[in-house]
Amino acid sequence: MAKVAVIMGSTSDLPVMQEAIDVLKELGIEVLVDIVSAHRTPEKMYEFGKNAHSNGISAIIAGAGGAAHLPGMVASLSPLPVIGVPVKSSNSIDGWDSVLSILQMPGGVPVATVALNGAKNAGILAAQIVGVADLKIRQNIINYKESLKEKVIKGASELNS
Amino acid sequence: MAKVAVIMGSTSDLPVMQEAIDVLKELGIEVLVDIVSAHRTPEKMYEFGKNAHSNGISAIIAGAGGAAHLPGMVASLSPLPVIGVPVKSSNSIDGWDSVLSILQMPGGVPVATVALNGAKNAGILAAQIVGVADLKIRQNIINYKESLKEKVIKGASELNS
Amino acid sequence: MAKVAVIMGSTSDLPVMQEAIDVLKELGIEVLVDIVSAHRTPEKMYEFGKNAHSNGISAIIAGAGGAAHLPGMVASLSPLPVIGVPVKSSNSIDGWDSVLSILQMPGGVPVATVALNGAKNAGILAAQIVGVADLKIRQNIINYKESLKEKVIKGASELNS
Amino acid sequence: MAKVAVIMGSTSDLPVMQEAIDVLKELGIEVLVDIVSAHRTPEKMYEFGKNAHSNGISAIIAGAGGAAHLPGMVASLSPLPVIGVPVKSSNSIDGWDSVLSILQMPGGVPVATVALNGAKNAGILAAQIVGVADLKIRQNIINYKESLKEKVIKGASELNS
Amino acid sequence: MAKVAVIMGSTSDLPVMQEAIDVLKELGIEVLVDIVSAHRTPEKMYEFGKNAHSNGISAIIAGAGGAAHLPGMVASLSPLPVIGVPVKSSNSIDGWDSVLSILQMPGGVPVATVALNGAKNAGILAAQIVGVADLKIRQNIINYKESLKEKVIKGASELNS
Amino acid sequence: MAKVAVIMGSTSDLPVMQEAIDVLKELGIEVLVDIVSAHRTPEKMYEFGKNAHSNGISAIIAGAGGAAHLPGMVASLSPLPVIGVPVKSSNSIDGWDSVLSILQMPGGVPVATVALNGAKNAGILAAQIVGVADLKIRQNIINYKESLKEKVIKGASELNS
Amino acid sequence: MAKVAVIMGSTSDLPVMQEAIDVLKELGIEVLVDIVSAHRTPEKMYEFGKNAHSNGISAIIAGAGGAAHLPGMVASLSPLPVIGVPVKSSNSIDGWDSVLSILQMPGGVPVATVALNGAKNAGILAAQIVGVADLKIRQNIINYKESLKEKVIKGASELNS
Amino acid sequence: MAKVAVIMGSTSDLPVMQEAIDVLKELGIEVLVDIVSAHRTPEKMYEFGKNAHSNGISAIIAGAGGAAHLPGMVASLSPLPVIGVPVKSSNSIDGWDSVLSILQMPGGVPVATVALNGAKNAGILAAQIVGVADLKIRQNIINYKESLKEKVIKGASELNS
Repeated sequence: MAKVAVIMGSTSDLPVMQEAIDVLKELGIEVLVDIVSAHRTPEKMYEFGKNAHSNGISAIIAGAGGAAHLPGMVASLSPLPVIGVPVKSSNSIDGWDSVLSILQMPGGVPVATVALNGAKNAGILAAQIVGVADLKIRQNIINYKESLKEKVIKGASELNS
Repeated sequence: MAKVAVIMGSTSDLPVMQEAIDVLKELGIEVLVDIVSAHRTPEKMYEFGKNAHSNGISAIIAGAGGAAHLPGMVASLSPLPVIGVPVKSSNSIDGWDSVLSILQMPGGVPVATVALNGAKNAGILAAQIVGVADLKIRQNIINYKESLKEKVIKGASELNS
Repeated sequence: MAKVAVIMGSTSDLPVMQEAIDVLKELGIEVLVDIVSAHRTPEKMYEFGKNAHSNGISAIIAGAGGAAHLPGMVASLSPLPVIGVPVKSSNSIDGWDSVLSILQMPGGVPVATVALNGAKNAGILAAQIVGVADLKIRQNIINYKESLKEKVIKGASELNS
Repeated sequence: MAKVAVIMGSTSDLPVMQEAIDVLKELGIEVLVDIVSAHRTPEKMYEFGKNAHSNGISAIIAGAGGAAHLPGMVASLSPLPVIGVPVKSSNSIDGWDSVLSILQMPGGVPVATVALNGAKNAGILAAQIVGVADLKIRQNIINYKESLKEKVIKGASELNS
Repeated sequence: MAKVAVIMGSTSDLPVMQEAIDVLKELGIEVLVDIVSAHRTPEKMYEFGKNAHSNGISAIIAGAGGAAHLPGMVASLSPLPVIGVPVKSSNSIDGWDSVLSILQMPGGVPVATVALNGAKNAGILAAQIVGVADLKIRQNIINYKESLKEKVIKGASELNS
Repeated sequence: MAKVAVIMGSTSDLPVMQEAIDVLKELGIEVLVDIVSAHRTPEKMYEFGKNAHSNGISAIIAGAGGAAHLPGMVASLSPLPVIGVPVKSSNSIDGWDSVLSILQMPGGVPVATVALNGAKNAGILAAQIVGVADLKIRQNIINYKESLKEKVIKGASELNS
Repeated sequence: MAKVAVIMGSTSDLPVMQEAIDVLKELGIEVLVDIVSAHRTPEKMYEFGKNAHSNGISAIIAGAGGAAHLPGMVASLSPLPVIGVPVKSSNSIDGWDSVLSILQMPGGVPVATVALNGAKNAGILAAQIVGVADLKIRQNIINYKESLKEKVIKGASELNS
Repeated sequence: MAKVAVIMGSTSDLPVMQEAIDVLKELGIEVLVDIVSAHRTPEKMYEFGKNAHSNGISAIIAGAGGAAHLPGMVASLSPLPVIGVPVKSSNSIDGWDSVLSILQMPGGVPVATVALNGAKNAGILAAQIVGVADLKIRQNIINYKESLKEKVIKGASELNS
């Protein structure tokens, strides 16, 4: 079973990041959750980043706010695709700091950035990545998208009834 | 051989997007390049998005500027991971429009966004995605990162000599 | 009787978009309301956009938030004037994403953009468009503006009494 | 023959606004061009706005930069649809001032805003407005869009040849 | 007795603008208050702006929000110094629209802009303008500044006691 | 003859500030020019601010860029109206720092802020302030505005000839 | 015992600045607290800035909001390192004014700026500065960082238990 | 002799960072220069950060652009004061990314941030930090500030001669 890691800098990011965990499980993917702080536990981050691909992890989702260095630093340490979730934390300047410090990575070290607080999309993106080679997961993605469509059509029909 | 599509809304985006094409080839991945405009050829975009995964494509890189709808619309049509490159086109407001109209996708339809004009990182990210299941490509990524490190160390030693 | 379509990506946009519906009715215009999502129901959007002008619709008002692609995509599909309402949704970055991804359309595909959450003005603008050839609607616009003036003058006289 | 007015605050705005004039003529619409400054000729602006609809004009395109008041003031004086073009003038703060002072009109007085320097789209939008009741102009719009599509398809085929 | 006009586009701006009225009275200046809307009562605005200096008014304070055209339009009509107060109204994009559409006036037509919601400072500035030639008012300004200093010093001594 | 001071933090601000000097002379006002730096000559600034009104100066124009403290500090020291010109210096972040650090003064200490690099308008505003009590200067302002109008009308007639 | 000054423009800044005072005491440093307003008590600020280093103070922490001139003005008066805390006050435009008017100091007069409302970090930074020569304080810093790490590791183990 | 380290992520940052090196030498401080990339040489960064204080370094100046993680990561590894210089690199979004990803550090890990491209001020700040305990360096700072004042006064006297 494919495994995706969901890490964040602080337990205060968990309410946002839980959406990634939930959608990954819904799509049939095993989830490893951990608190890893770039600034407070740099050694733990180093160990995590260096070894994730050898530990059977397929993709890493990292959430952080403010001067958010966790996604980019893990991306510098791992050959895996790293998905960054900018978290609008209490000290953030309207979320711009979180977004820009994750998105604007220098050439050579990409972070796949999703919307501000977009943890659910981070989970779906990780599943799409797993689904490149795992056709059962890809089918789950196709079904998931179908269910989104049905919800919109149901809303539309209630509106006009 | 894994195949990644690189699409863009206009040939004027090609100078920026060429970096994605080059790094993908350097990392051992076949590249399909096309001009697909969300606003001028919506039917072509629809066909492309609906069929990419059946045509042996593993990931889609889409570049666009201004009110950049191509990455998000393709992501709505395909179960593949879609990587968006915000292009700082001549009419863009400092690139903010390109970034925000690609990044801020609604829940359910992620786009893996990279830095403004960050086409090289889009190519590397696509290779990392392919490398999740293709260990030869992953090794190419590891070697690529090693070469970045050597370049920095060479620059440092020249500085201090 | 002239007919204007008011569409939006989600029922959660309805509280904002209701102001467009109300002012259109007040100005004597028939309103067609529907939920059409660029990202979740792209086929429905395609059908809607391609056929609106053949279905007796004079103008289209489309509301969306975040990476708001609905107005621009409908504008690419229809020869009708399309009015975009940037909605400040819960995940929006202060509304900038909604505004820029509707306003900054490339050359060839205009969207008539109104203020953030400016659905009332979208309705008035649609009526002004209908009023170009329908002089009864134009008179309703003139009367509506007169009533705005009277409200200001009444407020001023209360202030100074 | 339908007539659209293109006005601007200063002759220095003409290089940007010329694109609106050109596309309107290309689409078969008569154009009236004038210099009308909200801040330097307020009486002329007042006369223009009050009488445009009686002078056979169907829509007004107004371009202005910086604290751009011309589109909104004309909209307050006329029952016609007014299209605003934010011009990135030399003193503008990256165009944000032009965009926000045209877009963010209060309830009751809409301005149909297009992209920064988006005069071509203003012309197309005016033609779409005329085309609501004039089916010959609407056909011109449909043909124009078709020509855009062909240009993209030609660019794509050159790329892959 | 010197007279200063305080005008605003809507009674909803009064809670912000009241601070200007209060401080002007405190500094010994007569205040004329009125509701004048650039967009809803353009004729009234025209009359007001053209005649203020003949009606014994020394300076004009104008408050407005969003696409705030009242201060600039009055400045175009009057030879008096006009002070603009950007109001953070409910539809404003964080106040940026109010600030930029008042501040960024073109060469020839200045508006003396104060801080967002800074009506108190607008009142003090108007008094300073009157005080250029009226030494009694200037003395009131000097006394007012002295009282600010005393308040800070009292706060400091309470902190350290 | 009325006298206005034009001060700036560095001779590098002179090309921008020269427009204030020129228009003041054109409008019949004596100008005192000096280099006064808030950060490099705080004692000189203190002396200047404390004594300007006793030295026969009617208003102070202060230009500065980046973290621009000169206008606000002089305003804290003088009972005269102080006009601030945000200068877009080479190190400025698109001028936002200059604008915000001059405009956003706390309650009690206003600075009359003009547009980015808007030194000409600062000069006109100073003349309007002098013109409150000096009717000869007011007439110069009225004539100046008339000449602006004529220039626009001449431009318009050339365009249409 | 090393001494650090914590000053602010108003008692309303105290709730934010208290975090600096608390962490300094926790790290073994004596704290001097005062209210010093650049705009309301310029003379007191001048005396404070000129004499701080002679009064046994090692570093100055200055908090201010809006057009925040206190940190930069004190830095112009003192040879000591000055740490600026941008405070998000009620009238601030999302904190951007506080940040930019403290950060963007001209060449020659640095202010060590910390995050918006980042008073705790200002305190730690002052302790690190004292710790350059005072090895007991440096050890306190090392212990403090260790305690941060332990808190993260404890949070992580609770999450996974 | 006190020693300060000046590090940067790439040799392309050297033109900006040279100003820090020059002013430090001018103020009598030994400088250690190195290329250390957070994203390309994370191990080298780790070693550098962990050992700087044991290697006789008093303060660290770190310059970086875009998603600038070097200053914050070094600050997480070292008990020394770390000064961050946001560099406006070619891919930066007007410098906002560089500024926010250095400034907005979380509680516990401060970075003393200076202005965009403000390397000279970073050097002066490092000297001020050294000067807290080294009175010879403090005197150099006092002399340096005196020379700035003289330059302004000379400029002023030339202007008025």
